[in-house]
Amino acid sequence: MFAAIEAGGTKIISAIADEEFNIIDKIKIPTTSPSESFGLIRDFLMAYKDKLKAIGVGSFGPIDIDEKSRTYGQILNTPKKGWSNFNIYNQLNKDFDIKITITSDVNASAYGEYAFGLSEDKKSLVYFTVGTGIGAAYIQDGLLIGGRSHPEMGHMIINKHQDDGFKGSCPYHGPCLEGLGSGPAISQRLNKLGEDLDKDDKFWDIEANYLGQAALNTSYMFNPDCIIFGGGVMAKEGLIEKIRENFERLNKSYMDFAPLDEFIIKPKYDGQSAILGCLKLAKESIGE
Amino acid sequence: MFAAIEAGGTKIISAIADEEFNIIDKIKIPTTSPSESFGLIRDFLMAYKDKLKAIGVGSFGPIDIDEKSRTYGQILNTPKKGWSNFNIYNQLNKDFDIKITITSDVNASAYGEYAFGLSEDKKSLVYFTVGTGIGAAYIQDGLLIGGRSHPEMGHMIINKHQDDGFKGSCPYHGPCLEGLGSGPAISQRLNKLGEDLDKDDKFWDIEANYLGQAALNTSYMFNPDCIIFGGGVMAKEGLIEKIRENFERLNKSYMDFAPLDEFIIKPKYDGQSAILGCLKLAKESIGE
Repeated sequence: MFAAIEAGGTKIISAIADEEFNIIDKIKIPTTSPSESFGLIRDFLMAYKDKLKAIGVGSFGPIDIDEKSRTYGQILNTPKKGWSNFNIYNQLNKDFDIKITITSDVNASAYGEYAFGLSEDKKSLVYFTVGTGIGAAYIQDGLLIGGRSHPEMGHMIINKHQDDGFKGSCPYHGPCLEGLGSGPAISQRLNKLGEDLDKDDKFWDIEANYLGQAALNTSYMFNPDCIIFGGGVMAKEGLIEKIRENFERLNKSYMDFAPLDEFIIKPKYDGQSAILGCLKLAKESIGE
Repeated sequence: MFAAIEAGGTKIISAIADEEFNIIDKIKIPTTSPSESFGLIRDFLMAYKDKLKAIGVGSFGPIDIDEKSRTYGQILNTPKKGWSNFNIYNQLNKDFDIKITITSDVNASAYGEYAFGLSEDKKSLVYFTVGTGIGAAYIQDGLLIGGRSHPEMGHMIINKHQDDGFKGSCPYHGPCLEGLGSGPAISQRLNKLGEDLDKDDKFWDIEANYLGQAALNTSYMFNPDCIIFGGGVMAKEGLIEKIRENFERLNKSYMDFAPLDEFIIKPKYDGQSAILGCLKLAKESIGE
């Protein structure tokens, strides 16, 4: 059996699966302190200790995902109280003397979609999650891209829409992609949650323009087989279609792409892709 | 021996080298028609036909670099008269029944710098060439990144500088990176060549802002060990330092980086990196 841990800023999910990725057991807990949260995860996993062959972890970041680093698995500077410098690898390794693979939550989701959600002819993807923040990952031929560590694509530079007076919510960059298009950026700008905003509200044209720019930039950077947009904000009806329209308008026929409804798409396993990705990473980590 | 061909929009260089990458012979010809230009290249290479083990090609593009494609080595739609649909692989394969590897000119340069120019601790790089156009490539652990084909990073979206009234020279996107920061963009804007512009002209702050944005976006996308800026425009004294300043200001301490004079750097083999990259690709293509 294999274990997966998806550690998010508000909740942590852990799952146990068999060799065919059937989920045997699952737990979902709130993210409180590291010791409390990972104490509960430990208790959950201990029941399967003798059967576990490997653990895959996808965590919020920034986190050290370089296996050769002395601080592998360590959460770096995070505004999340108590979590800076907490080392997930060391914590798990105390109780589980098996292979433990650590990556970012976005990388894990991207890997899940890559491994289970793509049609056979596709060998590369960009995966965006648009929610509390905006994260993205790129996978090519099974390899998660990131030189020194996982990417931070959510903070890419984009052009502000002419009808958008919002100054941007990113504490670092103001109007970067995340500062303009994340869930908090929407609610700060409009004083209501995106989910409460009518699907025909003209704001969605602005949001789709920002995500269309993100799609364009990542297309030009990686030339992927497809771009997947997941996360809470993407639940809005009609948004993916609007992103496609904006992408097409911005590209101005410069690059040829697959039909847009096959190129800019929603995740196949939204909400489960990170756990699936962690399980796949765990299984592959021991060469299976 | 190995052969390299660097096919640019204005000139084509070919070189013969031994197993240790010592250049034995070299030719440089103007890029005229495909038949004329590659006729001269053929004549040059024929003198070494019996000794050649493999050929590496870095060509202007867009070009099909997918080895599994039926049109591998074919130049796609290009404004360069007579070159659209010319297939470099087929052309060379008529006379040389050895392994022929085709990539883009920017990929080849990046590969040359990666293979010969990096310090041992660096395993990934972004390579920009800023000249007639702006091209870029990313290499991680020896792998040239690009899903469907080579990237087109020169056309990424950036923010226009508040003091820049130029509408952009890119026929597709207007003010994309290439439309704002390439050599032609400079000369169209200022009615003089960049090389004739004083190094203290305030325009260089604008140029450095654009290239700083490009460095920032690619840092967030790829998280590379270093970013290299080469090409004709980069010959301007002081420009690399100004790019570092802009990068630092735009990053706002969001990501940690190596000391900037080791992170944003100039090529070690400027002007030769593409030929070196082609030779390295040729040698590796036959497993040597």
